[in-house]
Amino acid sequence: MLGNFSYSNPTKLYFGENALEHLGAELTHYGKNVLLVYGGGSIKKNGIYDQVVSILKSCDKEIIEDPGVMPNPTAEKLYQGCQRAREGKVDLILAVGGGSVCDYAKAVSVSTYCEEDPWDKYYLRMEDVDNKIIPVGCVLTMVGTGSEMNGGSVITNHEQKLKIGHVFGDNVFPKFSILNPTYTFTLPRYQMIAGFFDIMSHILEQYFSGEDDNTSDYIMEGLLKSLIHSTKIAVENPTDYEARSNIMWIATWALNTLVAKGKSTDWMVHMIGQSVGAYTDATHGMTLSAISIPYYRFIMPYGLQKFKRYAVNVWDVSPDGKTDEQIAGEGLTRMERYMREIGLVMNIKELGVTEEMLDGIARGSFIMDGGYKVLSNDDILTILKDSMGE
Amino acid sequence: MLGNFSYSNPTKLYFGENALEHLGAELTHYGKNVLLVYGGGSIKKNGIYDQVVSILKSCDKEIIEDPGVMPNPTAEKLYQGCQRAREGKVDLILAVGGGSVCDYAKAVSVSTYCEEDPWDKYYLRMEDVDNKIIPVGCVLTMVGTGSEMNGGSVITNHEQKLKIGHVFGDNVFPKFSILNPTYTFTLPRYQMIAGFFDIMSHILEQYFSGEDDNTSDYIMEGLLKSLIHSTKIAVENPTDYEARSNIMWIATWALNTLVAKGKSTDWMVHMIGQSVGAYTDATHGMTLSAISIPYYRFIMPYGLQKFKRYAVNVWDVSPDGKTDEQIAGEGLTRMERYMREIGLVMNIKELGVTEEMLDGIARGSFIMDGGYKVLSNDDILTILKDSMGE
Repeated sequence: MLGNFSYSNPTKLYFGENALEHLGAELTHYGKNVLLVYGGGSIKKNGIYDQVVSILKSCDKEIIEDPGVMPNPTAEKLYQGCQRAREGKVDLILAVGGGSVCDYAKAVSVSTYCEEDPWDKYYLRMEDVDNKIIPVGCVLTMVGTGSEMNGGSVITNHEQKLKIGHVFGDNVFPKFSILNPTYTFTLPRYQMIAGFFDIMSHILEQYFSGEDDNTSDYIMEGLLKSLIHSTKIAVENPTDYEARSNIMWIATWALNTLVAKGKSTDWMVHMIGQSVGAYTDATHGMTLSAISIPYYRFIMPYGLQKFKRYAVNVWDVSPDGKTDEQIAGEGLTRMERYMREIGLVMNIKELGVTEEMLDGIARGSFIMDGGYKVLSNDDILTILKDSMGE
Repeated sequence: MLGNFSYSNPTKLYFGENALEHLGAELTHYGKNVLLVYGGGSIKKNGIYDQVVSILKSCDKEIIEDPGVMPNPTAEKLYQGCQRAREGKVDLILAVGGGSVCDYAKAVSVSTYCEEDPWDKYYLRMEDVDNKIIPVGCVLTMVGTGSEMNGGSVITNHEQKLKIGHVFGDNVFPKFSILNPTYTFTLPRYQMIAGFFDIMSHILEQYFSGEDDNTSDYIMEGLLKSLIHSTKIAVENPTDYEARSNIMWIATWALNTLVAKGKSTDWMVHMIGQSVGAYTDATHGMTLSAISIPYYRFIMPYGLQKFKRYAVNVWDVSPDGKTDEQIAGEGLTRMERYMREIGLVMNIKELGVTEEMLDGIARGSFIMDGGYKVLSNDDILTILKDSMGE
């Protein structure tokens, strides 16, 4: 836990099969006008929309609808949402959906009363928020991003071919989030598995950094072992409540700032993956899975001790009679085997990437400096080519 | 993560060697009158008192002194503190010290405007707080209790020979806590080691409960491994910043409600240990260490699978060719060896317990029902006799 840092997480969580029961009491803290934000309408099919609307009405709220949030929410959609929130004099933004819906809700939350172009200010220039913020609450129906308990918000600008995440301060964190694991049961398999890897990647981006002895790394090893165990059960039986509830909880704690404390963090898999996403609109978690093994094999020599520790503590590799390189490599081999087993996409070609896109994707990848090696543009191209598979 | 629960932790933490720099900014949120609560005066010797007072004065605060909080704060002291807080029209209680000082600050926080006897209402009857609460901030100088980020508060009534903890809601949690690991460097060895075991016991009380597959158990295994690793370093070199900072962070997360989520919890070691403390005034962590091995050997048959998991995942016991009982037993043997190594008290006789006290201690132990066996009075006597050592 070297270094100086602060920790504050004001989001209140309601967890479990009965979690939605608490929505009514939470709503009493906010004014009458609620912007109801959701995605493509799956919540209308599975009944969650009706339940939420019925609670909103019983609390005498005015509902301003804002449906159609896409998997990678766009700057254009954000401008529309802000207009709707402004015109509706919204007192609370209620996000019902997955990470994209929560991310979008937070973007609208800070952007509605922003006096300049919010894309420029909050995404391109990543400035601090100095305007009025509309409070956000979440009803989570999909897990992975951790957006329900953090200040992160990723927006895509197709015109500029940029997908950028801003990490806002704790005044932008959702005020409350409702986490009912059964809401995640009906998610299509592809999205479910992509979400699983998004969680794993969040942990690994924070784990593979720093050389010091840090409690956060031990916590992350625990989270990873629980995640691997529960995801194996969930791919066999998506309605296993115990497994799905563990996964939902891990997703939240993987990216709510706790495990990053006292550490540097990497995030290069996300930077490259997001650039792939900006070119292909591919599912976020799958862009991460396709990049991860090539990326980790590339940086392994620069963080060998940590990759060795990872192999032993997370993947139960026996170190006896092996070199450090062999132990570390075996860890990544076991990780890859697990990833193929649960059905993740393992190359970016499958996500629609063509050879012609590679230069643009590499140039669109923001380079971070918290990992074991600061990548050059050529390094990224090498990783991308490796990610194209055979 | 079975079951329904909510999670909310509003305490803001400032961590690191420079953490005290944030005190001034925090003080601006509160009124002029500050009750400055501390213990026997060690903070005057090591300079922390002067630093804190200088910040309070530079923020133009009126300081009402409340020194002399004893290691096991008493009901009598609580009554005095409430009078002082009331007369001083206190806007903030600033606790500078260890867990007892923080516990006491929280007790004064809820009791000052309590219209009846606060010992009766909040400790004997454990009622909810329905009166005005004075906000609390902490500057931590000793680790172990986790009091800096939770609602717990233990008070001892010597007349009634009762030591009772009340776990208050998140409105009683400290508003902020300042955690500077270097403040813990000067603690006498005995107190340091007792604090280490207090942390371990907090984790184990929550770990040894329930049979389901719960992410909280994986997190606790990570915390335990980090704790064992760092405490071994710290007993060799108490000023090892990395080790002491990890330990400080683990202490906070061991008992700030996170790892209890979705679980039943036990707390019988604390219940028996607190009863020992009420009779002897022994250091809290040492009462726990003296009770733990006899208690865990006693309940092991009732939670065998968890004790086996504990042995393998935390103490690296190889399960090959052994019965479950052997594996589980070997885990406790390794734990006992570690405890002796770091210098913990391993029997209650050494803490001043006599044969004549045993009946009273057993009767004074509140019986909880979250562990693997609900103890009878005879069971507690058996454990106590075993704890008397040879």
